[in-house]
Amino acid sequence: MRIVNVALGARSYDLKIGTGLLARVGRECARLALSRRCVIISDRNVAPRYGQAAQEALAKAGFAPSLVAIPAGETAKCLKTLKSCYDQLAAQRLERKSFIVALGGGVVGDLAGFVAATYLRGVPFVQVPTTLLAQVDSSVGGKVGLNLTAGKNLVGAFHQPRLVLCDLETLNSLPMREYRAGLAEVIKYGIIYDAGFFRRLERGLPMLLRRDPPALAAVVARCCEIKAEVVRQDETESGLRAILNFGHTIGHALEAISGYGKFLHGEAIAIGQVAEAKLSAQVLGLPSRDAERIERIFQRAGLPTRVKLNTPQQRRLLAAMKLDKKVSAGEIKFVLARRIGVVEFGHQVPATLIPAAINSQLSTIH
Amino acid sequence: MRIVNVALGARSYDLKIGTGLLARVGRECARLALSRRCVIISDRNVAPRYGQAAQEALAKAGFAPSLVAIPAGETAKCLKTLKSCYDQLAAQRLERKSFIVALGGGVVGDLAGFVAATYLRGVPFVQVPTTLLAQVDSSVGGKVGLNLTAGKNLVGAFHQPRLVLCDLETLNSLPMREYRAGLAEVIKYGIIYDAGFFRRLERGLPMLLRRDPPALAAVVARCCEIKAEVVRQDETESGLRAILNFGHTIGHALEAISGYGKFLHGEAIAIGQVAEAKLSAQVLGLPSRDAERIERIFQRAGLPTRVKLNTPQQRRLLAAMKLDKKVSAGEIKFVLARRIGVVEFGHQVPATLIPAAINSQLSTIH
Repeated sequence: MRIVNVALGARSYDLKIGTGLLARVGRECARLALSRRCVIISDRNVAPRYGQAAQEALAKAGFAPSLVAIPAGETAKCLKTLKSCYDQLAAQRLERKSFIVALGGGVVGDLAGFVAATYLRGVPFVQVPTTLLAQVDSSVGGKVGLNLTAGKNLVGAFHQPRLVLCDLETLNSLPMREYRAGLAEVIKYGIIYDAGFFRRLERGLPMLLRRDPPALAAVVARCCEIKAEVVRQDETESGLRAILNFGHTIGHALEAISGYGKFLHGEAIAIGQVAEAKLSAQVLGLPSRDAERIERIFQRAGLPTRVKLNTPQQRRLLAAMKLDKKVSAGEIKFVLARRIGVVEFGHQVPATLIPAAINSQLSTIH
Repeated sequence: MRIVNVALGARSYDLKIGTGLLARVGRECARLALSRRCVIISDRNVAPRYGQAAQEALAKAGFAPSLVAIPAGETAKCLKTLKSCYDQLAAQRLERKSFIVALGGGVVGDLAGFVAATYLRGVPFVQVPTTLLAQVDSSVGGKVGLNLTAGKNLVGAFHQPRLVLCDLETLNSLPMREYRAGLAEVIKYGIIYDAGFFRRLERGLPMLLRRDPPALAAVVARCCEIKAEVVRQDETESGLRAILNFGHTIGHALEAISGYGKFLHGEAIAIGQVAEAKLSAQVLGLPSRDAERIERIFQRAGLPTRVKLNTPQQRRLLAAMKLDKKVSAGEIKFVLARRIGVVEFGHQVPATLIPAAINSQLSTIH
């Protein structure tokens, strides 16, 4: 088991990465001095697979768990599901010292985390992410929230978990499409923070696509380390933390205009990262070889890198981008790459360049 | 103008109490280094009366305000209104550095504050409370939230305002019933923290009921000082802050079982405080003379002090109390008074004593 600490003073916590952790969730929670009552929030895909194991592990350690299953998929990350969770916690008489276990992917973690942040003005919670995307990204750092019709993650809070357990075995049951989508966040860490890690990913991608256990353990741990380091430096995104949004300005807008259903989050940000790499080449002088390496690795990971938008779709995309949380004084701010491993936040990009970056071959914009 | 500071480190802020402050809201906000865009959230009673003045004052100071009006009354403090606020902020492209002005009573302040706590993971907000209850209680201290069908304030956050402006002139337009309801929180400060203040209230009640400006200014300022001091010592209610809930365990439950409409909050907690004073006499030895003084002052303020509940209502009341946020391991914890000016948190009370304390004459339980 690898352990990464997120150092945030009184809100510090460990990320534990390894195999067999789901069966240890009770013992791990027992170290946290929580009260007996807890509610596992999961979704209707994950709950039938891992819900019982989690409940049994918690019960064996002396906890009194119950299970709430929300619908699966990004569309469940909404106010309607939130209301249903609140009502079920109230019906189960959850108390301030009770805790919530988020068992599932990013949607479950974000929504359950927001429930934990706001129910009774905040109850403790533990993340047990079961997708690659959630293990390397959404379960770490305390960003929780939900979508509005108008945009993704427009509602939320910062609420740090008390513990994150990444059981690598749960990744074996992921459909290939979802696993690939998780790789989009993995690759992002190389682009924004660690050129050496990006090179290792280029070399090791075939093993990673086979879900080779040692390769996966090393990769998940490195992603968690980078995220923990960025969050430690800037917990509430007043600066540095914004670099984690590379590819997300366009990615989120793509998700919003397609109704949060067509693209998985990882697919949307794969397109977004490739487009923002092209914009980086145009605006910030990212070497075209780096932009090509970026597009190449996403292609090799089996992820979409472009999408054809008609004129009304382009208009809606730009409008959706203006709802981005990073907009300031009406200007959209991008995270752009200077080279692989080094990105900068706060760059403006002429709106006219954006549709071409999303649609085009690399060659056509150089 | 009197100024009370809430000393919370980087989250410190001023409460300003005086006349003519509504017309100064723009100038006061201009000191806070906020961005131009702001949204005033008010309700359909208050907005027609003060909305335009607030908008003009903000516009004159260089801000670009718009107005969102929610329905009036406690029933508006719900997820449906929350959704409507979110959607309007999104439609108006509110940004992270934009701010929200809560203009109205406790319902507006709690709901608008929760919107501010969670929209874009948190935007700044300013409280402009226009009821006595909001000026002395709900606008101070950062507790924001909303009700579920299952119970009051079950959802919420701690999100401190950047400034609280208590314009005493807005109290002149309050209906007498609402003004009296505010006095229930005023009297509470005497019971929980300051026996001298309680005596001054006993003496000065007729002037206070006439809304005599100097009397009112002194009383609002003293309440704000006490609340600021309690919040400074315990921002997130890990201990001391719970004393502010004297009368609220029963009061909240009464509101819940009557559907948040029959009693104003102040009326419910007047009954709650009188009942909890009787329980204090039985359980903690509060002198019966103190319990009598407590019932007497609420009666003189024109507030209800008892309510007749039939057996099913009593059952529902006890069930609603078990949903209280202060429940721990299934036990309801009360704030009880040892004497006027001195209360203690964490006392258990046999459930069988509660219905009698709510229904009975003082004499019948002694």
